[in-house]
Amino acid sequence: MPSSLDHAPTAGLVVIGNEILSGKTADSNAPYLAKELRFLGVVLARILTIPDEFGLIGRCVRDFASEFTWVFTSGGVGPTHDDITIAAIAAGFGVPVVSDARLQAALRGHYQGRLTEDHLQMAKVPQGSELIDVPGLAYPQVQFRNVIILPGVPELFRTKFSAIKARFAGRPIRLREVFLRADEGTVAGALRKTADEFPAVLIGSYPSFRREEYSVKVTLEAYENDGLDKAAAALEARLKDMNAQIVRVS
Amino acid sequence: MPSSLDHAPTAGLVVIGNEILSGKTADSNAPYLAKELRFLGVVLARILTIPDEFGLIGRCVRDFASEFTWVFTSGGVGPTHDDITIAAIAAGFGVPVVSDARLQAALRGHYQGRLTEDHLQMAKVPQGSELIDVPGLAYPQVQFRNVIILPGVPELFRTKFSAIKARFAGRPIRLREVFLRADEGTVAGALRKTADEFPAVLIGSYPSFRREEYSVKVTLEAYENDGLDKAAAALEARLKDMNAQIVRVS
Repeated sequence: MPSSLDHAPTAGLVVIGNEILSGKTADSNAPYLAKELRFLGVVLARILTIPDEFGLIGRCVRDFASEFTWVFTSGGVGPTHDDITIAAIAAGFGVPVVSDARLQAALRGHYQGRLTEDHLQMAKVPQGSELIDVPGLAYPQVQFRNVIILPGVPELFRTKFSAIKARFAGRPIRLREVFLRADEGTVAGALRKTADEFPAVLIGSYPSFRREEYSVKVTLEAYENDGLDKAAAALEARLKDMNAQIVRVS
Repeated sequence: MPSSLDHAPTAGLVVIGNEILSGKTADSNAPYLAKELRFLGVVLARILTIPDEFGLIGRCVRDFASEFTWVFTSGGVGPTHDDITIAAIAAGFGVPVVSDARLQAALRGHYQGRLTEDHLQMAKVPQGSELIDVPGLAYPQVQFRNVIILPGVPELFRTKFSAIKARFAGRPIRLREVFLRADEGTVAGALRKTADEFPAVLIGSYPSFRREEYSVKVTLEAYENDGLDKAAAALEARLKDMNAQIVRVS
């Protein structure tokens, strides 16, 4: 990370899901959250996918909560025996689980005569949680300290995150992409020199082996006014000097 | 995890990639590896995505190497300044990086007159690494102790993993999926009772909120001859008793 991104708010994502680790489902919440957080200027520093294990969930969430500004969890909230995220987080922080009256009312309103004891599991939260209204949903979002406890179902994950995302906004990060037809090893020197010259700009290099219009994508990222345009110009000049073909810049 | 899966070989995957954490690229190597390992009978226990940070890479890989049977890494191998995985792993284990003669020869053969010092970065490995031939590729796969160091480019990741996967094979795990049109909270009791009755069978429940033919997918997993068929029959009987609609079983 360039030094200038060091003061950005940070985040860790804990994905709770045997179904992802066993390859039965491909997680789509992490790529969605990663992109959203970048637009918000929050640096996503870890994505950790773990099995549905009580002690492990509590430990991982607590560790991330002390290391990052925000922690997001995905999965393991619901009425079945494998939905243990709420209780595991509470245990990880050493607080009891309590049944929230407002969540109970939301569940009674939704399920009415079909309500079971298992449904009422979904009224439970770690003691001290904040409930955040989500427009269009009867069921509010649960935040415990700096931990945002989100459902694994992608539609709900997105609806709930979108509704509350304003509270995470930091200073936006700008991105420039330079697409080359060149060999990565040949342009490596030009990239390194530019990275050394502009320490506030994060430069990445990604080869493509598919038959596309380009063979290397170079990314440059920095905060507004932190030299992104100058770094991109310096890099492009170096690449032109060595006759590397710049296909397009976006 | 059910107790009977406890003796399976385990694995951890470390994905090294700023481009994934910043949402510029969606990782496809983790879902691929997860599915492959399940077919092989290897329990994938963690997927951890971290930024391109030298000390962090070494620490995470070393920790996973002591915790799991196998560690796979994805990304950060190549000729540019952001390709630091090899050196970081060596440092994490306290061994030097050495330039391998066979890898040098492969690079000279491939790049010929265009070879740069930066290309020769790709001949470096942690001291003590094993090089495994990959049919059809000039460049062999690098294994350091129980750590398999794979490239992030999906085509190469798959080609290389496929070529060497026989060495990871454990005892295969069987999967049964039961698709229901039912409310998850209503069937939760039937799932819990079946899970309690068959501790060697791992039972998961996944609601779907899209307009599909089913609303809940129940998965059952176990080793061959560990009661998967009996558990599935017991669950189906319980679901029929409560008039839950089984759409299909696969």
